[in-house]
Formats: sequence, structure tokens, C-alpha cells
Amino acid sequence: MGKDYTIIALDAMGGDNAPAEIIKGAVKAVNLKEDIKVLAVGISEAINKELAKYEYDTSRIEVVHASEIIETEESPVKAIRTKKDSSLVVAMNLVKTHMADAFVSAGSSGAILVGGQLLVGRIKGVERPPLAPLIPTANGLSLLIDCGANVDARPSHLVQFAKMGSIYMEYIVGVKNPRVAIVNIGAEEEKGNALVKETFPLLKNCTDINFIGSIEARDIPSGNADVIVCEAFVGNVILKLYEGLGATLLGKVKEGLMSSLRSKLGALLIKPALKETLKTFQADEYGGAPLLGLNGLVVKTHGSSKAKEVTNSIIQCISFREQKINEKIKEKLLIEDK
Amino acid sequence: MGKDYTIIALDAMGGDNAPAEIIKGAVKAVNLKEDIKVLAVGISEAINKELAKYEYDTSRIEVVHASEIIETEESPVKAIRTKKDSSLVVAMNLVKTHMADAFVSAGSSGAILVGGQLLVGRIKGVERPPLAPLIPTANGLSLLIDCGANVDARPSHLVQFAKMGSIYMEYIVGVKNPRVAIVNIGAEEEKGNALVKETFPLLKNCTDINFIGSIEARDIPSGNADVIVCEAFVGNVILKLYEGLGATLLGKVKEGLMSSLRSKLGALLIKPALKETLKTFQADEYGGAPLLGLNGLVVKTHGSSKAKEVTNSIIQCISFREQKINEKIKEKLLIEDK
Repeated sequence: MGKDYTIIALDAMGGDNAPAEIIKGAVKAVNLKEDIKVLAVGISEAINKELAKYEYDTSRIEVVHASEIIETEESPVKAIRTKKDSSLVVAMNLVKTHMADAFVSAGSSGAILVGGQLLVGRIKGVERPPLAPLIPTANGLSLLIDCGANVDARPSHLVQFAKMGSIYMEYIVGVKNPRVAIVNIGAEEEKGNALVKETFPLLKNCTDINFIGSIEARDIPSGNADVIVCEAFVGNVILKLYEGLGATLLGKVKEGLMSSLRSKLGALLIKPALKETLKTFQADEYGGAPLLGLNGLVVKTHGSSKAKEVTNSIIQCISFREQKINEKIKEKLLIEDK
Repeated sequence: MGKDYTIIALDAMGGDNAPAEIIKGAVKAVNLKEDIKVLAVGISEAINKELAKYEYDTSRIEVVHASEIIETEESPVKAIRTKKDSSLVVAMNLVKTHMADAFVSAGSSGAILVGGQLLVGRIKGVERPPLAPLIPTANGLSLLIDCGANVDARPSHLVQFAKMGSIYMEYIVGVKNPRVAIVNIGAEEEKGNALVKETFPLLKNCTDINFIGSIEARDIPSGNADVIVCEAFVGNVILKLYEGLGATLLGKVKEGLMSSLRSKLGALLIKPALKETLKTFQADEYGGAPLLGLNGLVVKTHGSSKAKEVTNSIIQCISFREQKINEKIKEKLLIEDK
């Protein structure tokens, strides 16, 4: 492999639109960025059939055959252990053996989270690797950390999330001195559940992050913090409600627009402007959610990902490697240990 | 007092717009409904000044003087204990002594929750009184129970929430055999945090509610369940995010509409239709959130309530009394004990 490339192990068979949209996204990514190589992992016949549709630098997409597919309904642990020749396991092993820098998949969330820990492995000192999607806000993006599958976190987990999230926002998203807040039900330090009350003073004592205190869920969409720290159950609720409520409200707006002849005419006039504004609130603009704290980058994109989101998820990985995020995480956690 | 009236003890001094909007809302309520009497509690001079502005049946609004006011920043427990002549405490005591059927306030949430328990008191058998606002969905309203201040609930609390919420939705909102779901991070029974995993089988075994299983936050705005059971920290996050994200998204839509001359023209055409559709998503249409399980009804409305929300909150109390909700709650919880 070329020495200056970011190499992506792409799970070509994961997700609702695999392999067509996944491969389309990969081709687009290599056509957009010269310093990317993709290892497209999965059933080679199916992948080659898709690749044949496009023009691209064939030296930068390599097909790696894997005969099995992990389905969303399968038990993650069992699937990872038994389907050794699945696209997900083979692709993750490419990261584990340093044949690839990053893993990208739209496949089963559970399997990605379990595989990330069992196959790619945690950075020494990381207690729990968090899944950290970027969510759109009124004035940019915030990192919601953790939205993973491991719930009932301990205060020390949340402190590590805050640190890893800060590094990600600063070096990948480019937010200087990112504001870190903990999700709470009030602004005051004495508010909250047992976990938040115990975590709050620990975060306050961290000298290496810019902790600004509690954030109420109401203020998340306003963009009042860059790194939003919470336990995974709460993070999951926030993420899913963000998606569901956005869709329902926009549905209501559309319903309103179609309700009379007058409003239909108006709708034609506002369509381009509205589309442009709402684009900033769409998930596929931002690529996938990284699973941080592993010996290599694991990125999960939506199960419903289309080519565009796959492309963005792949491109996102370049800065991850260039900025040596893992080294920075190791450093920060080691400082803490001293 | 007349025997056929629902009597409301109204905290005239609580909320950002007190007493003007509170009194305006009370006048509107008695003008709309003949079977309501309001005891307007607070500084009589200020209340009378507001009342003088309106035409109404003066026999149905009585001013009860209370010299003190509880502010939002005060410690709830201390405020309830020391400000014995505050509008909130005096009004709650009217419910406690059965001089009034219901208490309505836009004042300090903390003080209302504490006062409800300390002054009005719990129904025997109720472990924890939940705060249960109605939230708008794509096809109606759902009850989000619990959004109160007492977090870290036990499974038995959630089971009682499910039962009380069912009664409220069936008899107050008029939903036959309401679908009860527990907020979770996946649809399967084995998913969730420790609390949800422990509560799920208990709910499944309840023969007196229509338990439909888990609901992911994504499906709440679609209206997939009528009673949405969760621990208060999670409920608070859902409620606040609902409000915050709604406001941010509508702000984005408006921004889009104002971005060009073309879209401005379109905006004029769509305005009436859009307003009508989005009305169903506005909090002030639904009145306040009841604090269930007390010896009397306690209703909390938004701190920012205007007259309309106050009116709706007051009117809401009629069915609560007519339907004998407290008797029904007692009955259901007693059945459980056998």
C-alpha cells in the first residue's frame, strides 16, 4: 500500500442499501480525494458488479472477498464470534492488523460496537469506547457522547468521554477550545441524578477540558455546547428523538403546505430556499459516528445510509489519521494517570 | 361554595407573566365554562387591579389574599416551609382542606412538586407522584410520565406511573384502552438499562393496562404510544428537547423563508396554512401538566404561560373532578395490593 494514503476498510455488505449505495459512496470518495484507498470487503462478485458501473482510479479500490453477511437481527456477540468470514469481521481485522487505518460500516450497530471492542480493541487506559455522533444545531455541529450500546456508565467513563470528545471536536471538526457540558435537568450543580451529581465535580476539576457546566436538553439544539456528555441511554434518547422529531415536524410543515391551492403556490416559491436552510439539519451531511478510544478508527453510519453519507464518512477518516487522534487520546489519558 | 362547581385554587402570582396573564386566563375560563369557580390567590390589590379590566360573573372568581411570593430561584423545600403566606402555599392548602378541587400554577416547578407532596399529600399507596405533561405527536397527544424532579426511580414507581397514566389518558383525554410503552433504546425485551430491564416484565404482567412494549425515542413524535413511561431524568430530557428542537427547527424554516425575495413572497402565501398545521404542535394548546397521585389535583403550567394556557389548564380540571380520577387511581392501586 502507498505510504501516504488513508486506507479505509469498508464493509460493503452492511446497511439497508448495500452493496449498491456503499460502493457508489466509495467511488465518489476516491474520486473526490486523492489520498484515499478503499478496501471494499464483502462478496466479491456483488462488489465487482457495482464497481463496473463507475469510472475511477482502479488502483485505489481493492476488493477483499468475505463470504458471509451479519444481519441486523443477529445477536452481536454470537455473530462476531461465529461469522469469521463476514464482511464486518474481515474488515475490522484489517484495522486490527494495521492493514487499514479506519473501518466504515452501515451494518448492525450492535455488531460494530461489539466488534470494535473485541477485534480492534481498546486503547490502553480507555475504560469504555463511546459512540459519538455529530448532531446539527442552530449554529453548527455538536458531538453527542455517548450514544453506544453500553448503558449505566460510571462517572469515570463520563470523564473520559469528555476528554475524548474534546480532542475529536478540536482536531477533527476544528472547534478551538470546545465547550464541554453534561446533560442535566437543571443548570445548578446540585441538580441531577446520582451519576450526574457524582460526575459534575470530577469534570469541574479537569484542567485539560473547557467544562462549562450543565446543559438542559432544551439548549442542545441552540448549540450552547460543543461536546455534550451523557450516559448512553440518555444519549440514545436524544439522538433518536432528534431524528424522529425533525422528521415529524417537517412532515407537518409539508402537510400544511399542501393544504390549500394558495399554500401550494407558496410552496413552489419557497422550496429552493427552504431546502437550502434545512440541509444543515440533515444527518447525511455529516458522515458517520466514530467509536472512539479504539486502536484504530471505527465509524458507524446510519443503516439507511445512501452514497453521500458513505462518502462523507470515508473522507472524515483522513483527518482522523492525519491528526493522530489515537496518539492524542493516549497522551491525555496518560496525563490523567500520573 | 356551590355544589356543582369545580373549584380551582389558582396561584395568581406564579410565573413570568403573573398576575396579568394568569388573571386574564382565569376570567376567560369562567366566561367559557359555567361550572367553574376560581379562587385567585395572591396579593389582593394586584389581583383586583387586573380583575377590574374584565367583564365576568363576579360570583365565580373570589380573591384570596396571600402576602408572599415564592420565586423560581428559591430552594423549594425551604420556600414551602418558611413562606406560609405565599400564594402557592395558601392555594395548595385550599386543596388540602378540600376548599378547592384543583390547584393551578405557573410558578416554580420545584416548589409545586415539593408542595404537592408535603401539603396536598399522596394518595395512600402511591409511592411517588409523577409529573405528566401531554406532548403533541403526529396524530394527537401522548402522556409523558414522569417528568418530575425526583430522579433515579425504582421499577415499582414506573409500574404505578403506567397505571396512573392509563387512567389519565382514558378518562381525561378520552383515549380508549391507551397503549402504554416504556422508553427504551431498542425494541427487544433484553435491551435497555438496569431499570428498564427490571421494569419490562413487571409491566408485561400487568393485566389492567394495555402494555405494548418498548418505544424508541424516534417513534415518540409519530404517536406510536399514548402513555410513555420513563424515569424523570429521561422524561425531562425528552420534554425539554421536544421544546428546544421544535423552536430551533421552526426558526430554521423561518430563516429559509426570509432568505430571498422569491421565498418571502411564498411565505406570505403559505402563512395561514402553516400556522394552522403547526398549531397542533404548540404547548399552550394543551394546558398544564398534572402531578398525579395526590389527594387533589395539582397542575403545573409553563413558567412562560400566557392567558390561553392558563385557561386551558383550568378547564382541564373539570373532567378530573367529574371523572373521579383520584378514586380510580386508589382503586387500581388497591387491586394491585391484593
